[in-house]
Amino acid sequence: MRLIRPEEPSSHQQTPRRKGALSRRGLAAGAAALLAAGLVVPAAASAPTAPGNAAKAAPHNVILLIGDGMGDSEITLARDYTVGAGGRLALDGLPSTGTYTTYSVRPDGSPEYVTDSAAAASSWATGEKTANGRISTSPRTHETLPTILELAHAHGYATGSVTTAELTDATPAALVAHVADRECQGPADMAKCPGDAAEHGGAGSIAEQALTAGADVLLGGGRQRFEQRALGGPYKGRTVLERSRELGHQVVTDAAGLRRATPGRPVLGLFAPGAVPVEWTGERAAVGGTAPQRCVTANPARPAGTPTLAEQTRKALGLLQGSSDRGFFLQVEGASIDEQDHAADPCGQIGETAAFDRAVKVARDYAAAHPGTLVIATADHGHASQIVPLDAEPPGRTTTLVTDEGAHLKVNYGTGAADDTQEHTGTQVRIAAQGPLAERVSGVTDQTGLFTTLRKSLQLPKPTRAVGPGNIHLAKSSAVVDNE
Amino acid sequence: MRLIRPEEPSSHQQTPRRKGALSRRGLAAGAAALLAAGLVVPAAASAPTAPGNAAKAAPHNVILLIGDGMGDSEITLARDYTVGAGGRLALDGLPSTGTYTTYSVRPDGSPEYVTDSAAAASSWATGEKTANGRISTSPRTHETLPTILELAHAHGYATGSVTTAELTDATPAALVAHVADRECQGPADMAKCPGDAAEHGGAGSIAEQALTAGADVLLGGGRQRFEQRALGGPYKGRTVLERSRELGHQVVTDAAGLRRATPGRPVLGLFAPGAVPVEWTGERAAVGGTAPQRCVTANPARPAGTPTLAEQTRKALGLLQGSSDRGFFLQVEGASIDEQDHAADPCGQIGETAAFDRAVKVARDYAAAHPGTLVIATADHGHASQIVPLDAEPPGRTTTLVTDEGAHLKVNYGTGAADDTQEHTGTQVRIAAQGPLAERVSGVTDQTGLFTTLRKSLQLPKPTRAVGPGNIHLAKSSAVVDNE
Repeated sequence: MRLIRPEEPSSHQQTPRRKGALSRRGLAAGAAALLAAGLVVPAAASAPTAPGNAAKAAPHNVILLIGDGMGDSEITLARDYTVGAGGRLALDGLPSTGTYTTYSVRPDGSPEYVTDSAAAASSWATGEKTANGRISTSPRTHETLPTILELAHAHGYATGSVTTAELTDATPAALVAHVADRECQGPADMAKCPGDAAEHGGAGSIAEQALTAGADVLLGGGRQRFEQRALGGPYKGRTVLERSRELGHQVVTDAAGLRRATPGRPVLGLFAPGAVPVEWTGERAAVGGTAPQRCVTANPARPAGTPTLAEQTRKALGLLQGSSDRGFFLQVEGASIDEQDHAADPCGQIGETAAFDRAVKVARDYAAAHPGTLVIATADHGHASQIVPLDAEPPGRTTTLVTDEGAHLKVNYGTGAADDTQEHTGTQVRIAAQGPLAERVSGVTDQTGLFTTLRKSLQLPKPTRAVGPGNIHLAKSSAVVDNE
Repeated sequence: MRLIRPEEPSSHQQTPRRKGALSRRGLAAGAAALLAAGLVVPAAASAPTAPGNAAKAAPHNVILLIGDGMGDSEITLARDYTVGAGGRLALDGLPSTGTYTTYSVRPDGSPEYVTDSAAAASSWATGEKTANGRISTSPRTHETLPTILELAHAHGYATGSVTTAELTDATPAALVAHVADRECQGPADMAKCPGDAAEHGGAGSIAEQALTAGADVLLGGGRQRFEQRALGGPYKGRTVLERSRELGHQVVTDAAGLRRATPGRPVLGLFAPGAVPVEWTGERAAVGGTAPQRCVTANPARPAGTPTLAEQTRKALGLLQGSSDRGFFLQVEGASIDEQDHAADPCGQIGETAAFDRAVKVARDYAAAHPGTLVIATADHGHASQIVPLDAEPPGRTTTLVTDEGAHLKVNYGTGAADDTQEHTGTQVRIAAQGPLAERVSGVTDQTGLFTTLRKSLQLPKPTRAVGPGNIHLAKSSAVVDNE
């Protein structure tokens, strides 16, 4: 049994009001979406349709930037290589800083000390721990957990998600979908989520759910998922992309198309069949090491006209800016830091971290001009790469880089078998912020606490779930620290 | 050419006044020690001998706690094992948090991306980067760099250093000695520091220099170094320990002796011939892994009567408390976190991290009762250990622990050859603080900036060195970020 009971809206909540251009999918549509997802719409959500009671307030904006797999080691590596050990990234300039814990839980509620991206993203998207692989659903009973994007939309905020991964990949998926497994990205990928499949009466794959979650802007890769045909539901037999166009979305596939997109109708940008190709290339780390190498700051496999993460972020901000008097929520993911760390490819990894850092700069520049904007930059989990002494002889994959400041830097990847993928790590990771409520990231917090920070920044009421046999029961010592 | 020019004391500096009990080695002795080290004594240092001008101010105390090798991964591992992934260490409760960079430099000024403990400790002890292995001396020209302990002593503060390592090991050494190489711990260990040897007219080994640096309390291991006979200098032929007693120091060698020590005369505590034995034991990580194990929270090789780091810290605070109206500077090192990480021994490592955390609690409790106290806890560098998924198959040494909350946790050590020591890493590490100026640790700073924070907290003037051919010239991009 699903039950979401809204709290009373706080007294300082201002009445949300959508601009006319977005009215066709404004509050009422958002409410319908939440109802469809089994959520009761908070009382405040219906207020904006009542005219004349709006005292206009400054908008609250949140820009959440996620470096996937960007632990402290990955940040240091990118800094050392690009701006030098004593230089500073845009990331580094965020004034409020702390670390947060990232563990996930098993179905029995016991801790899983190394999270995956799905459980991690679900935790800040919903405020609840779940099991690795799950997308914004509870770990044992498969309850739908309302997400920060859905809640923001239902309360009249403009919302968006930008990524270098497929838009259906775990990190962006956790904002807009609820499935049992992260692999259920398109209608043809539902083997691990039979109950979620549209042909079985479920809400459909991640791609299908992404269309109706209430996002105004979705930019990334993964066109292949949206080109799959629905196997059930209201548009059975047609592709998700066809459905998106039927819904009036602006579908763009390259930088030029993205530039032409205008506020007023949702924008779906799909810039690659799969993940957006990385920006830099180089030699992978190898057992026994490599000759010293410089990274190639280009990738022949990256088509001209592929927008950078910074360009996507800038455009998303332009589209969201002014779309709602309340403000907006935008998540930006640098996804392939993780992917390249898995591949023991330090140049790919550093290039993606640098690209992410340029997106952070775009966000910080926006916030400097719009003081009501909270900017948070963090990671979902730690990863494999380590900076080791030049004379170290690790048994895993290593390489020696010649950094921009001309020194040798040795990188080690030793968390997976040498012929296999490198693994995530369970370390706490950095979280940094500027703007209203930025101080909440200080100290040691938990990833679920990030949800609360996002929610409070957007002045959203706390969602409540009935405590039933299906809900999470953490081991006492792993109880989530109350971050309220 | 050595030249230290003091700045004018700041206007808010209060006149220091030592309690009578310590007068025999008060300011004049401190000034003599600095002069002997080639430093000009700051003008303020002679003020306290002038009576009648003292407006008594609240004391400024600094407790600096260093977890050697205690990167974010090591902190998370100790938390997960002892209090659970959702639990909190004493460390975690420090409200102001950030990360700092730890790189060292080569003699040519180019960056060395992975520091050792000697260069790291020298950087916060002196505010200047140096080369790996060096103890508070400049990287190419072997200049003596004044240390925070020496400066604090010269300005009338009580000072102390506590460690689980030998007192002559790199981290405590950097506060009280200036030698070319960290190995030069006792009079018989001077092979790498011929110019520093007493028999060649130098200031002597680390042990010899430790006696005259102005520390009121020195507690740790390393008795063997102090039992060596001086090969030159004023007490040639006698042991360092004999000299210490001649100087009137209280020499103690176990917990009972430590309890009997009283304020008024310097205390030298030497609780083991070498490093103080660790608190916990267990099976080392091994190639291919181990059976799941619980750590043994005892060590038969640790003699009864060996004081814990928390006990040492508590006693040091009791000895320093009230010894000077100005306040005190105390460094506390949990040294064997690093040593056990090198040895791929997770139980030893976690036990030492937990012991360090209990010392942090002692410091925090003291600060709660004495509001003028700045407490800082940080590491000198990152290290090897990583928490990896249970199904990971790294090529290095791994083990599976059964944590106190009953879950399995897999630890990987893969930075060194499997049959050799594990290596440090170059990652940025956490720095956390409470008390006056704690906010200075927020954001991203550099290890040299910690010196400035310590100095400002103690209201000490900035030491200046003439810029000459011997001084440090960092590559432009690795220029130390100005942390003033």
